[in-house]
Amino acid sequence: MSFEPLPDVDSFVASVSFGAGGLVPVIAQQWDSGEVLMMAWMDESALRDTIATGSATYFSRSRQSRWVKGETSGHVQRVRDIRIDCDGDTILLLVDQTGAACHTGDRTCFEHVGAR
Amino acid sequence: MSFEPLPDVDSFVASVSFGAGGLVPVIAQQWDSGEVLMMAWMDESALRDTIATGSATYFSRSRQSRWVKGETSGHVQRVRDIRIDCDGDTILLLVDQTGAACHTGDRTCFEHVGAR
Repeated sequence: MSFEPLPDVDSFVASVSFGAGGLVPVIAQQWDSGEVLMMAWMDESALRDTIATGSATYFSRSRQSRWVKGETSGHVQRVRDIRIDCDGDTILLLVDQTGAACHTGDRTCFEHVGAR
Repeated sequence: MSFEPLPDVDSFVASVSFGAGGLVPVIAQQWDSGEVLMMAWMDESALRDTIATGSATYFSRSRQSRWVKGETSGHVQRVRDIRIDCDGDTILLLVDQTGAACHTGDRTCFEHVGAR
């Protein structure tokens, strides 16, 4: 499996139902192990950059700015596949995560609740 | 792996950062295969019902009401594990999905974009 540029980026982007603030939630999943790594948000610009570069690019709601995942940490996400759900309002990225997905240094951002 | 009631439901619920409209996004993942099945939303009441019953219960933004996944279709999600992310604003449910997760009849709600 390898990431191929979408045949028609404009029609795909137009099919995405961006919600409040022009954002769509994006689930990042490690393509081979199936680990759900994190959830973040994209605006249209971040989505287009993700497609153009093959490197997951998100929009930070707290900083109100675009960020390339791993730009400072090196923990980049190379996109292997892009999927969208039946309502067009959630994106699933299959990625190859370098190092830790979480800023805490953990592989994924999710932890078992029972262990809290 | 089996679902055990949380040791302290109130403190867990209090730790969840519910966003706009009092909702938190929830990713449902098939516990054994790793398939990401769908993303939906919960309010506090749906989350408490999910924990109490072990059956995934969501909040419909379009209908503005609570729904038990599979209540009419029989395509229930039995919860095996509950995880929360580092910011407390996204929940990952590991579930055992009966039949199709998607109302379209597909196993998951996600489809490959390139095939659109």
